[in-house]
Amino acid sequence: VRAGSAAGSAADLRAALFAEAVAIDEEGVAISHAMAEHGAALVPDGATIVHHCNTGALAAPGYGTALGVVRAAHEAGKRIHVYVDETRPRLQGARLTAWELDRLGVPHTLVVDGAAGHLMRTRGVDLCLVGADRIATNGDTANKIGTYTLALAAAAHGVPFYVVAPLNTVDWALPDGDGIAIEERDPSEVTQVGAERIAPTGTAAYNPAFDVTPAACISAIVTEAGVARAPFLETLAAARRAAPRELAATR
Amino acid sequence: VRAGSAAGSAADLRAALFAEAVAIDEEGVAISHAMAEHGAALVPDGATIVHHCNTGALAAPGYGTALGVVRAAHEAGKRIHVYVDETRPRLQGARLTAWELDRLGVPHTLVVDGAAGHLMRTRGVDLCLVGADRIATNGDTANKIGTYTLALAAAAHGVPFYVVAPLNTVDWALPDGDGIAIEERDPSEVTQVGAERIAPTGTAAYNPAFDVTPAACISAIVTEAGVARAPFLETLAAARRAAPRELAATR
Repeated sequence: VRAGSAAGSAADLRAALFAEAVAIDEEGVAISHAMAEHGAALVPDGATIVHHCNTGALAAPGYGTALGVVRAAHEAGKRIHVYVDETRPRLQGARLTAWELDRLGVPHTLVVDGAAGHLMRTRGVDLCLVGADRIATNGDTANKIGTYTLALAAAAHGVPFYVVAPLNTVDWALPDGDGIAIEERDPSEVTQVGAERIAPTGTAAYNPAFDVTPAACISAIVTEAGVARAPFLETLAAARRAAPRELAATR
Repeated sequence: VRAGSAAGSAADLRAALFAEAVAIDEEGVAISHAMAEHGAALVPDGATIVHHCNTGALAAPGYGTALGVVRAAHEAGKRIHVYVDETRPRLQGARLTAWELDRLGVPHTLVVDGAAGHLMRTRGVDLCLVGADRIATNGDTANKIGTYTLALAAAAHGVPFYVVAPLNTVDWALPDGDGIAIEERDPSEVTQVGAERIAPTGTAAYNPAFDVTPAACISAIVTEAGVARAPFLETLAAARRAAPRELAATR
């Protein structure tokens, strides 16, 4: 956005800012649709999916990220079933993802996060889908707490584990996940659920908002430029170069 | 308990029943102390421990099972720290284990179940301790939902994973965990926390009470007869033979 010439009126500036905001939104929507299409190609017909946190239209532009893949697969006519991790402590899965999937008409079932291993052992999970808050150039991915534990269960069962995120989630200055500081949030998010106190008064709680999933546990990272697989250092850089010119210019 | 002769009065019968009840309780307490001692020997000084569900004096006779090991290690002067899995959906960790550890004076921190992988990756967990609801003769162990997911995280990080349970938890007629039916409990335990509804009305939830951890993920099973390691088919049978005669007679 140019600040405009001295002759530019406040109305001109307002119009330019609004146009830029619309362009940013449209770019976000276009990126989300591209990610959703690339990701949906990885979803077999009849797939059972485990999804963590909230990654849909309530969280991100357009179709969102991981949940956009679910949506695109569903809209493509694939018969899928999503196990929705409730995602303690903030319960984004129970509160938001379950609501979005209901609105989209996608069959889904809410589970506690700890059920992941049991689901994979007994119900035949075909893939896991998660978003990302920050991705290092080697593919290490920071995402909502519980992501890494889910990834370990997936790895043990040979279940593909897909991260879905726009390229602007990649921190090109970050070599690996060790450089990602993990935010610690208020312990009361763990000791209390809404008005309901669930632990004795004075109980100490550790409440990391995120965890880091090492690249070795990630089957692929789906961006607007396509499906990147290990070695991510090369494939993410290639995705960056391959991204549509007008989008890349904003990064 | 013999029903008594025809001449036996109701008071005699009552006294006999009471004596038997006391004997059963005393046996349970003795077993718990033996498990606690055997298990405490596995806990290094300065250990960081992850514990799942509730397994203390509120759940079982005497010192309990897994939490009895914590208690014995603490009483032996070992400086330990326990990460308490909240244990969704029923929150036995948050509600009960945190309370018990506070009363015992054992340093502890409450975490969401999904934090297990992150704790192991960043904080150096030394061992996991869990109880058991039912153990097959090959060592496959049914325990509170979330146990298996924790065991997978532990296996990935090389963290010893210990099951602590009395020998009467072993089902000697059960060859492996595939024969264990998993109770499904009311979905409202997942969709609601106390009076707090956490998912949209009508959301379907799958609420298995237990999961099965395959023996391959278990480092040892601690019983009143000692520490059994793989192959459990042999070592559990040996433990059964080694158990104190008067206790074995009740099995």
